[in-house]
Amino acid sequence: MDRDELQSYLRFTAEAVEAAGPIALRYFRAGTAVADKRTGGFFDPVTAADREIETFLRDRIAERFPAHGVIGEEHGSTAADGELSWVIDPIDGTRAFISGMPAWGMMMGLLEAGRPCLGLVHQPFLGETFSGDGNRAWLQSGATRREMTVRPTGSLDDAVLYCTHPSMFSPSELACFERVASRCRMSRFGGDCYAYCLLALGEVDVVVESGLQPYDILPLIPILEGAGAVVTDWHGKPPLEGGQVAVAATAELHDELLATLRG
Amino acid sequence: MDRDELQSYLRFTAEAVEAAGPIALRYFRAGTAVADKRTGGFFDPVTAADREIETFLRDRIAERFPAHGVIGEEHGSTAADGELSWVIDPIDGTRAFISGMPAWGMMMGLLEAGRPCLGLVHQPFLGETFSGDGNRAWLQSGATRREMTVRPTGSLDDAVLYCTHPSMFSPSELACFERVASRCRMSRFGGDCYAYCLLALGEVDVVVESGLQPYDILPLIPILEGAGAVVTDWHGKPPLEGGQVAVAATAELHDELLATLRG
Repeated sequence: MDRDELQSYLRFTAEAVEAAGPIALRYFRAGTAVADKRTGGFFDPVTAADREIETFLRDRIAERFPAHGVIGEEHGSTAADGELSWVIDPIDGTRAFISGMPAWGMMMGLLEAGRPCLGLVHQPFLGETFSGDGNRAWLQSGATRREMTVRPTGSLDDAVLYCTHPSMFSPSELACFERVASRCRMSRFGGDCYAYCLLALGEVDVVVESGLQPYDILPLIPILEGAGAVVTDWHGKPPLEGGQVAVAATAELHDELLATLRG
Repeated sequence: MDRDELQSYLRFTAEAVEAAGPIALRYFRAGTAVADKRTGGFFDPVTAADREIETFLRDRIAERFPAHGVIGEEHGSTAADGELSWVIDPIDGTRAFISGMPAWGMMMGLLEAGRPCLGLVHQPFLGETFSGDGNRAWLQSGATRREMTVRPTGSLDDAVLYCTHPSMFSPSELACFERVASRCRMSRFGGDCYAYCLLALGEVDVVVESGLQPYDILPLIPILEGAGAVVTDWHGKPPLEGGQVAVAATAELHDELLATLRG
């Protein structure tokens, strides 16, 4: 796909997701009823906002690109084996969402032959939209647009580490994570998709997570890579199926990260 | 102190802290240099913003109320044994601050005979000011002002729990915390002062922390109590010296919380 096509799809994505922002804000801090679809013992809250937003975005896609596939968190996959497929995570960070903390985001990305070619995160409470096409990445904040680049952190000693919650790890994974955390300058939990955006923005250096769904990470990859970050699973492969994810601001830092995860 | 005096002090506090907001925003997401004053092995980042804001607020207080005491994070205590003393935590949530996450806050409170009688948290990136006088509490968001009340959660089963980071606990404290977390509907790390504000707002039900400094909690007490929450240490006493803090939205929930912490 050429650059003009990518930019045109990215404009469509921004318009669609930003148009859905008011739906999210109607439910945010509004005493949202929470349905519990406990899966594997992990509390996974789903809100009415999730369902309504995904329906809204699927309708937009069906209108404009009826032949494209769609992979969504709430309503499954349709025609997802075609050349172009959209990935939707209507509210990533539902724990943050249902507790009133503005660290959640609305995510949408496009896959070409199964690989993410553009991605976008919109945070309507903050009025921010993070986007990328794998080569470049941008933050639109109100009327201000800036290009994002990671910071040149070369060692875990100097790195700020994020992870959504330690409960995403198995006991053996937790040992790996803690080995990384003990080498970092600082670690913080509670990131959700916003932590990856902060990495692209040059404020965070490393994100290590596990148990992700494909829609949790696919829309983030073109943003992260567009800002210069390295995104793999814990073994250095593209994390296209979700699962374990290891992101670092630079290639040097990523090498040290994977070596430290291996122990 | 009568209600009019309290309201007058609260207006002064809001004006002073909101006037300092732009100082914080100048340093937020601006590649802030971080000084490391490692104390007790816990990484405690302090930014230039911290020092500049505290100086700004101390100057305002000295101008308007030269006889009052001041207890600050950065510049120590002056005349703190008088009848009225101000407590300043210029940037609470420095981990959030230096990683670009808007969960930090600028805090200021007033002590009368050593007990907090009003408190305020300002989050300039979000344009929010949370305040309280022990009887009532408010959220000012842009031009909108609303009164805050906790939600009537009666049991840990239904509760959303927050804590800034598990590293704030000793191993035995962590066991107590995990006992509470295992009974709650959901837990999330990464709160800082903002988690307490979300509790006052009715979005969070329980906050359990340890290792706090007096200035970390004193400005929050009149906001939390003003919204109807119960604030003690882990043994049911006022947490005027910081240390262990246990906050719950209702008295019933607080009883269950302390019993669960005791084990």
